[in-house]
Amino acid sequence: MNYFDINDIDNLQQWIEEAKELKKNPLKHKALGEDKTLVLLFFNNSLRTRLSTQKAGLNLGMNVMVMNFGQEGWQLEYGDGEVMDQGKSEHVIEAAQVVSQYADVIGIRAFAKFENKEEDYQEQVLTAFMKYASAPILNMESAIGHPLQALTDMITISEFNTKPKPKVVLSWAPHPRALPQAVANSFAQYANASDFDFVITHPEGYELAPQFVGGAKVTHNQDEAFKGADFIYVKNWSPYVDENYGQVMNTDENWRISAEKMALTNDGKFMHCLPVRRNVIVDDAVIDSENSLVIEQANNRTYAAQIALKKILESIEK
Amino acid sequence: MNYFDINDIDNLQQWIEEAKELKKNPLKHKALGEDKTLVLLFFNNSLRTRLSTQKAGLNLGMNVMVMNFGQEGWQLEYGDGEVMDQGKSEHVIEAAQVVSQYADVIGIRAFAKFENKEEDYQEQVLTAFMKYASAPILNMESAIGHPLQALTDMITISEFNTKPKPKVVLSWAPHPRALPQAVANSFAQYANASDFDFVITHPEGYELAPQFVGGAKVTHNQDEAFKGADFIYVKNWSPYVDENYGQVMNTDENWRISAEKMALTNDGKFMHCLPVRRNVIVDDAVIDSENSLVIEQANNRTYAAQIALKKILESIEK
Amino acid sequence: MNYFDINDIDNLQQWIEEAKELKKNPLKHKALGEDKTLVLLFFNNSLRTRLSTQKAGLNLGMNVMVMNFGQEGWQLEYGDGEVMDQGKSEHVIEAAQVVSQYADVIGIRAFAKFENKEEDYQEQVLTAFMKYASAPILNMESAIGHPLQALTDMITISEFNTKPKPKVVLSWAPHPRALPQAVANSFAQYANASDFDFVITHPEGYELAPQFVGGAKVTHNQDEAFKGADFIYVKNWSPYVDENYGQVMNTDENWRISAEKMALTNDGKFMHCLPVRRNVIVDDAVIDSENSLVIEQANNRTYAAQIALKKILESIEK
Repeated sequence: MNYFDINDIDNLQQWIEEAKELKKNPLKHKALGEDKTLVLLFFNNSLRTRLSTQKAGLNLGMNVMVMNFGQEGWQLEYGDGEVMDQGKSEHVIEAAQVVSQYADVIGIRAFAKFENKEEDYQEQVLTAFMKYASAPILNMESAIGHPLQALTDMITISEFNTKPKPKVVLSWAPHPRALPQAVANSFAQYANASDFDFVITHPEGYELAPQFVGGAKVTHNQDEAFKGADFIYVKNWSPYVDENYGQVMNTDENWRISAEKMALTNDGKFMHCLPVRRNVIVDDAVIDSENSLVIEQANNRTYAAQIALKKILESIEK
Repeated sequence: MNYFDINDIDNLQQWIEEAKELKKNPLKHKALGEDKTLVLLFFNNSLRTRLSTQKAGLNLGMNVMVMNFGQEGWQLEYGDGEVMDQGKSEHVIEAAQVVSQYADVIGIRAFAKFENKEEDYQEQVLTAFMKYASAPILNMESAIGHPLQALTDMITISEFNTKPKPKVVLSWAPHPRALPQAVANSFAQYANASDFDFVITHPEGYELAPQFVGGAKVTHNQDEAFKGADFIYVKNWSPYVDENYGQVMNTDENWRISAEKMALTNDGKFMHCLPVRRNVIVDDAVIDSENSLVIEQANNRTYAAQIALKKILESIEK
Repeated sequence: MNYFDINDIDNLQQWIEEAKELKKNPLKHKALGEDKTLVLLFFNNSLRTRLSTQKAGLNLGMNVMVMNFGQEGWQLEYGDGEVMDQGKSEHVIEAAQVVSQYADVIGIRAFAKFENKEEDYQEQVLTAFMKYASAPILNMESAIGHPLQALTDMITISEFNTKPKPKVVLSWAPHPRALPQAVANSFAQYANASDFDFVITHPEGYELAPQFVGGAKVTHNQDEAFKGADFIYVKNWSPYVDENYGQVMNTDENWRISAEKMALTNDGKFMHCLPVRRNVIVDDAVIDSENSLVIEQANNRTYAAQIALKKILESIEK
């Protein structure tokens, strides 16, 4: 099996419970990955994902080999039948098959390039690797999804939730640069699969792709969305709509998360995937408050990666 | 012992057979490298060599430390008596001795720079490391040789060969950039040391250095060379001849490997060290055919590295 | 405990003796670090520190994860209350807490930036990490100190010293680029804490900060300083004085270490932390002489890191 997106999870609640068990005893399954090799390929920079996925592999007893594909390797070609006489030195057909021979599991991070919306939303890089690789693929954030982050967030909400059906809000916030929709997409997808009263709030023009919005309530009124919320999950993303795809169209400071806005919630918890720009996305007073879960989220990255790797390793064993 | 080139192999056929044994049971000698450290120094980018050599070390139970010398370190001086008041921060005299103290084996990749043919053909970097290092050196592709690749290729031919004396052809093919002669040099050297009917074919002006051509037949007629061949090994290289050293003098598409050309062979196998530019070096129809061995070659990189490391480790033990 | 500077050492002589014991049997404490993770964060390039600290961790049985923060991550913000709408993507408040969750020990290298003397001398980066991290911090060279190098140097002097109170000289030497004071600062600090006749010699304008000079004798007469010396420790540094802070004010070749100067000593040993520019800092004849300890210094880097890591691990165990 791959861990590409939510469709690779047979039972989300069970994965969450198992991850919480791993957190209590991270080394319990150290024999499972013995003499197995995890290769992590980074096409983009990383801090949390890099270290937590390595750590998860080590906790499972795996060997881990890390490669920065762009800096230490070269550009890959993804097109069919291309005459490769320009800047790209190797086709993914070979690269994926080759890496598979040195790896028992391949982790890949490859962000949206914002050059071609269709290519991004077809998940060009991950799709090609899954097509040609003979080893299972672990998605470490792709063009349009970040399933390890979303799984982390569900684990974290599960740890802090006290209600049968908490109100969970995904709120856009401003950022000076154009960021991918990946984190927001996956969070929405996993929230929709959970027993949440789930609301998405963002300015006009910032609608997420319909397949991720699903049945969530959507409002442009951030204050209305925050009322009575138990969890506020904040993230910037750039527009999905064709005419403004991947551009910065709005930096309205009124969307920044302040103590006043948090006061509208039901003593709501503040969540963000990090890295976060302080006093742009969120005020110091909020992220430094007792209700901020951002560090525990980062901690749970290890166990999200570990449960995904454990499931993959178990699927190989069979 | 070092593994610098073919002269470090006491018995090529025996190494090939041992590598094939390692492939059946890669972890059999995991105790041999226990508590031993393999340091891999990359002066140039790498995919296969980086991952397969790490993997080979792990299979032997070694710790592996990888360093990108240029990006993570600084430029080295190689000259004797130089006043180092320019851009080079450390002399190889110190660097080689220092790294030796943290390593039981040092792998080095350092390509031809094409600035000075004499320096390239004297193997400035590897020679200096072998001179000053107290730890054994593993050549992960030097200015003029790629002995791990050539060993890999001999293993692969051995696996697929069905004849007492197969016809093996090394063919030049076009490429938009100037590439080193290293892979072609080593392939020719190892092929000459094997029981092959060995032919080299390339355009005029692309003669390899005489010490590597050895007793091989050389022809400028690619079609003639391909007739009845059992293995077609394809590689671009730039001219060795003084006046055009390291320049692109020919990009003639007629040299690209097509299905028509392969039809001249005796159901010949297609080989390439990768990365390969599709539809420039070779047509999709050839590399995607059943006769293409390129992925199995990449797989054998692990066992070529592993037999070389095993021999080095055994030489330390004595 | 952290190993930030000399104040973290309870008994310097005992640390030196323990390091010498580790050197005899580096793997004796391999169980101590089992299932513990050492994360090494490099904000600057490194050869010796990178490999020797990794090696020290491996000798103690630790897992080691290495990250080049700038190249593989992004720029950090250190200021309080900053509106992070410029080039910095993450605040050290989050980064330090996050990395702590994947690490049992965090090694950090972050040089002086020479942009702001006050920031450098307040150790902005290391101080912030020590403030916010929940894991112990290992200083792998900070803005104004290099305590692993100084510990190495004390171990090396201890190995070669034959006197109750050797004469030890720290001498400035010329260099084409502006270098930090870190190595000189720490060497002076550790030498002052040892039973040495300790002399510092440098041109006018190159005075080190008073807190590092301590009670050492200081002279601008290099020849006078060298007379009868047992150990000559050479290093370039740029001026500490406000008006010329971090600038190259002097490249006087007369300060280069020659055989003639060494002849003034009591058959003195030559020491340098490396990398060294030959024939700029020191003549070939000196560094290549039998009295040169530079390679043994580099070797001792492993055991300095190992004793520091061992002390940190033992402090965690308690």
